[in-house]
Amino acid sequence: MPELRKDPITGRWVIISTDRAKRPSDFVRERVTIEGKGFCPFCYGNESKTPPEILAYGRNGGGRNTSGWTVRVVPNKFPALGIEGDLDREGEGMFDHMNGVGAHEVIIETPDHQSTLAMLSHRAIEDVLCAYRDRVLDLKNDKRFRYALIFKNHGDAAGASLEHSHSQLIALPIVPKRVLEEIEGARHYYREKERCIFCDIIRQESESRVRVIGENDLFITVAPYAPRFPFEMWLMPKQHFSSFENNQTPVYANLAKALKDNLVRMDAVLDHPAYNFMLHTSPIGEEVNEYYHWHIEIMPKLTKVAGFEWGTGFYICPTPPEESARFLREANVSATPA
Amino acid sequence: MPELRKDPITGRWVIISTDRAKRPSDFVRERVTIEGKGFCPFCYGNESKTPPEILAYGRNGGGRNTSGWTVRVVPNKFPALGIEGDLDREGEGMFDHMNGVGAHEVIIETPDHQSTLAMLSHRAIEDVLCAYRDRVLDLKNDKRFRYALIFKNHGDAAGASLEHSHSQLIALPIVPKRVLEEIEGARHYYREKERCIFCDIIRQESESRVRVIGENDLFITVAPYAPRFPFEMWLMPKQHFSSFENNQTPVYANLAKALKDNLVRMDAVLDHPAYNFMLHTSPIGEEVNEYYHWHIEIMPKLTKVAGFEWGTGFYICPTPPEESARFLREANVSATPA
Repeated sequence: MPELRKDPITGRWVIISTDRAKRPSDFVRERVTIEGKGFCPFCYGNESKTPPEILAYGRNGGGRNTSGWTVRVVPNKFPALGIEGDLDREGEGMFDHMNGVGAHEVIIETPDHQSTLAMLSHRAIEDVLCAYRDRVLDLKNDKRFRYALIFKNHGDAAGASLEHSHSQLIALPIVPKRVLEEIEGARHYYREKERCIFCDIIRQESESRVRVIGENDLFITVAPYAPRFPFEMWLMPKQHFSSFENNQTPVYANLAKALKDNLVRMDAVLDHPAYNFMLHTSPIGEEVNEYYHWHIEIMPKLTKVAGFEWGTGFYICPTPPEESARFLREANVSATPA
Repeated sequence: MPELRKDPITGRWVIISTDRAKRPSDFVRERVTIEGKGFCPFCYGNESKTPPEILAYGRNGGGRNTSGWTVRVVPNKFPALGIEGDLDREGEGMFDHMNGVGAHEVIIETPDHQSTLAMLSHRAIEDVLCAYRDRVLDLKNDKRFRYALIFKNHGDAAGASLEHSHSQLIALPIVPKRVLEEIEGARHYYREKERCIFCDIIRQESESRVRVIGENDLFITVAPYAPRFPFEMWLMPKQHFSSFENNQTPVYANLAKALKDNLVRMDAVLDHPAYNFMLHTSPIGEEVNEYYHWHIEIMPKLTKVAGFEWGTGFYICPTPPEESARFLREANVSATPA
């Protein structure tokens, strides 16, 4: 008998297949490979082929938009939103629209075209995370923005259009609906119990251990109780923190280790799958609060998309999170280089 | 400057690219082809390879589970839910789950392996729609169910695992979250204005015409004002009806014509894309109401999925609906056979 499970934060029900649960090898998919063919605007020497850089780390001497950097942030060449302009709101009969004002940036994670984020050193991943923080802190100075969304598409199947390892940042004049829904769910729980729902989840998962994938001093990774996707992972700070960007530097070093560990385990168990991750944090203007707990959601792209899931919010997950957590937890990753 | 648009029903904001709007030929994709290789459990002669049939039309003489049918409904051989059992609800600490009780059925739309739904005659499509109605009406006798979800995945890219033309029905003990959200949005609008929001949309779209794709006596198809996907279509009854299944037979004949017209236009403009459609109707137990308006949402699968869209509910649509409506409206489909 399959199981219907309810996500305690959003109230979303999902179907978990239990009888014929899929093991990692049951997913037909293509391993993400890096071809390295053709022109790449993110490689050294091609800095002039991107819009002028916003931020760069690691360059000793040399001018802006030259080689020598370790992490580089540039505006997206084909932005979904325009950075100039006012937030004009207008109606069209019963419909509402506003100017598509926002920022759309690309964080180039490494100059090495052949590297994936999982292959980078702890220190290099920390730099990527610090670049995320720098950009969010800077964009918050722009009063038009209400939310900064950081995400990564890795591999063609996950929507990456360039193979050179990168993440993206979109700053928006609105809070996206699903983000708002999660925050509202957490706020509702807090109003009833005066406790953060994520803190409660962490407490329960830490005791039962069945869905814990890994943890270090500051972070814990679990397979969520009601996942939408097989092998979905949530990486959360163990203590209550409402915003990603309001942390001190050592936290990002610790996060880099936890993130790398998750990605390496995922690569080992699922043979280098395409994946997405999203950073969920509090909206701009309510960064410090008791009810919301920032975290990263990682989703390997293993299943063919039945588009109706978008339309209905109804997900069928073919692997119980207890099993995916066990596979990931027990993965042989001892030889992981730092 | 791109545009941010708000869906008036759900309140979801989407980004509409306007500067570099994509035309049909800009979408790289594979035309859905029917290989016809290998064993097919949905073809004549293989009736014993599916679970025993629930419903069949068109068989003159001959026993159950033999050839000669025109439309055939069978339980899904690998159901996401189990039909037997009670709705036991249980907790696991702060988490909730219940038995995965439900129905999961397959509607085999034609015995012809080479036919797509778009290629069927009006009469054959009407039979498919009547089979949907029959199954929903029958499943409503089961007190455990709260919602009947009918959908179609066409083509591998849209999640179809068998190429022989078919749709699916899932009956659920809960109302899926996105369905509920849409219904709540419509209910909220009705409470404020005492009018159905879909009726208001139809009124406005009928006047402006810019997003109208087609219409006949009873149905109208529009490109929604704030689409999630390029070339998304909403097929709606022009008069207020809250439930798909509570219509008289001639309505389905009319719907068959409208649906075929949409699918043929989509095939012409987008070169036979993979697609999904979902039938949105009122939950079981509140079939007759003033606020909700049943309809079919059709989504060609043109874009690579950026998985973060699931996580955030934040969609970027590269083609304005005014343009997709124009392409679909002006498609040369005069030679469509009946």
